[in-house]
Amino acid sequence: MMKTDIEISQAAQMEPIQKIAEKAGFDAAIVEPYGNSKAKINVFEDHTERKMGKLVLVTSINPTPAGEGKSTVSVGLADALQKLTGSTMLALREPSLGPVMGMKGGATGGGYAQVVPMDDINLHFTGDMHALTAANNTLAALIDNHIQQGNDLNIEPRSISWKRALDINDRALRNVVIGLGGRFSGVPREDGFDITVASELMAVLCLSKNLHDLKTRINRIVIANNTDGKPVTVGDLQVGGAITVLLKDALKPNLVQTLEHTPALMHGGPFANIAHGCNSVLATQTALKYADYAVTEAGFGADLGAEKFLDIKTPVLGKTPDTVVIVATIRALKYNGGQKLKDLTNENLEALKNGFKNLQRHIKNMQSYNVPVVVAINQFVSDTEDEIKLLDQLVSDMGVKIVNTNVWEHGGAGASDLAQAVVESTTETHDDFKRLYDNNLSVKDKIETVVSNIYGGNKVEYSSKAEKKLKEIDTNGWSNLPICIAKTQYSFTDDPKKLGAPSDFTIHVSDLNIKTGAGFIVVLTGNVLTMPGLPKHPAALDIDVDDNGKISGLF
Amino acid sequence: MMKTDIEISQAAQMEPIQKIAEKAGFDAAIVEPYGNSKAKINVFEDHTERKMGKLVLVTSINPTPAGEGKSTVSVGLADALQKLTGSTMLALREPSLGPVMGMKGGATGGGYAQVVPMDDINLHFTGDMHALTAANNTLAALIDNHIQQGNDLNIEPRSISWKRALDINDRALRNVVIGLGGRFSGVPREDGFDITVASELMAVLCLSKNLHDLKTRINRIVIANNTDGKPVTVGDLQVGGAITVLLKDALKPNLVQTLEHTPALMHGGPFANIAHGCNSVLATQTALKYADYAVTEAGFGADLGAEKFLDIKTPVLGKTPDTVVIVATIRALKYNGGQKLKDLTNENLEALKNGFKNLQRHIKNMQSYNVPVVVAINQFVSDTEDEIKLLDQLVSDMGVKIVNTNVWEHGGAGASDLAQAVVESTTETHDDFKRLYDNNLSVKDKIETVVSNIYGGNKVEYSSKAEKKLKEIDTNGWSNLPICIAKTQYSFTDDPKKLGAPSDFTIHVSDLNIKTGAGFIVVLTGNVLTMPGLPKHPAALDIDVDDNGKISGLF
Repeated sequence: MMKTDIEISQAAQMEPIQKIAEKAGFDAAIVEPYGNSKAKINVFEDHTERKMGKLVLVTSINPTPAGEGKSTVSVGLADALQKLTGSTMLALREPSLGPVMGMKGGATGGGYAQVVPMDDINLHFTGDMHALTAANNTLAALIDNHIQQGNDLNIEPRSISWKRALDINDRALRNVVIGLGGRFSGVPREDGFDITVASELMAVLCLSKNLHDLKTRINRIVIANNTDGKPVTVGDLQVGGAITVLLKDALKPNLVQTLEHTPALMHGGPFANIAHGCNSVLATQTALKYADYAVTEAGFGADLGAEKFLDIKTPVLGKTPDTVVIVATIRALKYNGGQKLKDLTNENLEALKNGFKNLQRHIKNMQSYNVPVVVAINQFVSDTEDEIKLLDQLVSDMGVKIVNTNVWEHGGAGASDLAQAVVESTTETHDDFKRLYDNNLSVKDKIETVVSNIYGGNKVEYSSKAEKKLKEIDTNGWSNLPICIAKTQYSFTDDPKKLGAPSDFTIHVSDLNIKTGAGFIVVLTGNVLTMPGLPKHPAALDIDVDDNGKISGLF
Repeated sequence: MMKTDIEISQAAQMEPIQKIAEKAGFDAAIVEPYGNSKAKINVFEDHTERKMGKLVLVTSINPTPAGEGKSTVSVGLADALQKLTGSTMLALREPSLGPVMGMKGGATGGGYAQVVPMDDINLHFTGDMHALTAANNTLAALIDNHIQQGNDLNIEPRSISWKRALDINDRALRNVVIGLGGRFSGVPREDGFDITVASELMAVLCLSKNLHDLKTRINRIVIANNTDGKPVTVGDLQVGGAITVLLKDALKPNLVQTLEHTPALMHGGPFANIAHGCNSVLATQTALKYADYAVTEAGFGADLGAEKFLDIKTPVLGKTPDTVVIVATIRALKYNGGQKLKDLTNENLEALKNGFKNLQRHIKNMQSYNVPVVVAINQFVSDTEDEIKLLDQLVSDMGVKIVNTNVWEHGGAGASDLAQAVVESTTETHDDFKRLYDNNLSVKDKIETVVSNIYGGNKVEYSSKAEKKLKEIDTNGWSNLPICIAKTQYSFTDDPKKLGAPSDFTIHVSDLNIKTGAGFIVVLTGNVLTMPGLPKHPAALDIDVDDNGKISGLF
């Protein structure tokens, strides 16, 4: 009988978090325990100067319903690297609670390559999401209160871009009207709720280098225009201090462990379309400073997550990856090559060859930044010998190392070859990191660079709304911010149905949102939902807890 | 230069929370630290049988803008009792974050009678409020999703009584329309947000004896009627397990300390009008089991908080108070006696004599339950010798002990006489506790008993809406639940302007809400707001944090 992820997690013998912290090299004075298996690391009290270790970025092909297992491979790789080198730390995103109640499937890896305690991590963890929700909605309440109390800043209520947020899947809150019920209960206006991980504050938290930087970024967030059309910021409202206070503990990275007791920092988790999709700069930096190898990942496929890691996070982090690991499965490549979901267990070399083009483009994209690439195949029992051989050949022909892994079943032992390949890759000398675009290019030029060089498209069309926003960006002097393209994760194009490696296509820009706190311009293509809904049979129906507090049905 | 509360708190030398836990007698195995100065106590893992100590309930006269300092006296009394007896524990409510951003003034005592760390406690603490918010809104999302996905239970959308909640002061969310934006974004309907502490889940958490009881109560919460007018419960939706999972850690009492290192459990904080206004049964029970003296308090004046403590909480707790301490100030009594707020520093014996009638009725009310009463005067520098003498006489003439305290300035030392009086009072034999009403009385009879015996009114009028609800209560067999009257805290009447001790008045019942999970019927009199607003100059404007994480301007 195969054990479920939560059963494996609950059966795990965790080490006390103080012991993990000690192993990681954290002084006891900067470790703030949250229960016995979680802690926050007060990195602001760490005044030591340290050399940074090697940075390993794990990314993947475009995700498919077949599953790729990027987080699972990240965890297994870290366990293998820890065994090989004795000094490795994971730096991952922390999960959002909303989807936990909706779709089964956690954000803590799977099988024997998990971060634990998975139930705590997937529920309230150390409260970071809740602090972000509270900060987000406190700011919203302060905006509406400002208008109610006389509106000294002349905020135009219809221009308010600061939405409310909940860490929940709740489609009924996407579009709401607030302030009803008469003059003592606010000014009526249209509003909406985003899921907390889609809020600008989440992106701000993940890109802030310290409390000072956090407050500076919060103060420069634009929340509306005034009646003259000029931007109004949090700083104008004079509440940047209060909002920062609400996030001061959330800014500290969270320490947990893998099933094999490798230290893992899980901290921050912005969307990888309307935000940059990486864990916090502070956690990655901490992992780099305390370990010889830091393993981190970026959301969705390499066209979204890795591109944003390299173009948005890397300049703030001040460190480029020493190796990029691209995760793929033979199943997912066959799906990308046209095979139906229900037929994926059948051998199909033709579909694999076709689907390989998706992997091929991601490899070339990463190589264009001058970062070394290793391909990790997350093996399934249905993979045939001929399929494995073919894919080996196709990747090796590109001069790229390809390694099979089986971490779900074997944990770190299933990634020992991958760890070896990664260590070799990071010690090779390679050309200097090559940025994709110069921030001083025009916004359109930046967009077109990503579309042609990363997506493989040949044209960008702008809606009239987008053109209007481009002018506003220009007028306000925001053109030199990097761009963050919100696009479907399933395709290189803006159409989720176009799999593989399409070319000669047009990307349609519908709108742009300026995130002056996070420091990037969101470029919206197609319809990107920032508040998910629950499915017909939500996971909540199967979740339960017994009288002793033991949870079941979580995954 | 007088120090502010936060300056005193930040200068405090706290003991490590493990040391406080040890002092309180908690086995290290049931202590879950949250940082170095907070912990949750896993009371479910405490399988020891223990005798209960003495229960001291602190309550007060009707609150006034002059301030009474009930929490401050509770803290000082606990410190004095700890010094006198060596075995005392505080059991207080935990504060709501919403008001912290609005009005200055915390819920952790003041001066040298504080619970610390006051900034953490007043901000996110151990996440209980956030867990309640998440649980409340997850349930709301599941209700709307049920309707969206086919509505198998035939829920009538206009009958949904389960509102959303945020731990925030946000008047613009009192009345909203949700589900706009077309068929993929829910079913449009009127809705509203309450502040989290006003949610039924908060009351449920505070009245639950263990996880099993918590889940049972959650499952029986009525969230709407179906199209046949029959109640629909959380159990019908089959999500009681998931909602309980979200509250399993929040149910564990939180341990902190006073400035003088007395162990303090701060846990739960329901409103004292639309809910019962006391900290959790589990925390009070834990304090009683581990200490010879447990000091607890109830919200607002004795007409609201203490009445509900005695009629709603006591039957669940299985323990009646061994002494009730009624806190008053000479300033507040003079205000009750007709003196203007700006003149309160002037001596006025006539006003004091008039205002004493408020205290007198509260004393008689408490005595009617056969519980011993001690009056504690929270001294101010403006109190004159003649005023002190007069009040002493008036209270002593009732055969009741009156003790002056000065805990704001002197901490526990300012309440040593009060501690002595309390110990004496709890050791006196007294008649058996006398319940105010039998739950089997009709709802109207229960209401009229409270109005005549506690408030001093002589008539109750019911709106047609209220009459309709009374019939519904009868039809559904809910009549034998205790009642929880929501009334202004400023007066014995339902008119906040009628101070002192009015009599021959009518109480107007506008509506009734059935809280089947909490297990009481809320009786609404007048207009009770369940979502506060922010003031013209919110406290948030003055709150800040420096680059090292030190907070200023909180209080």
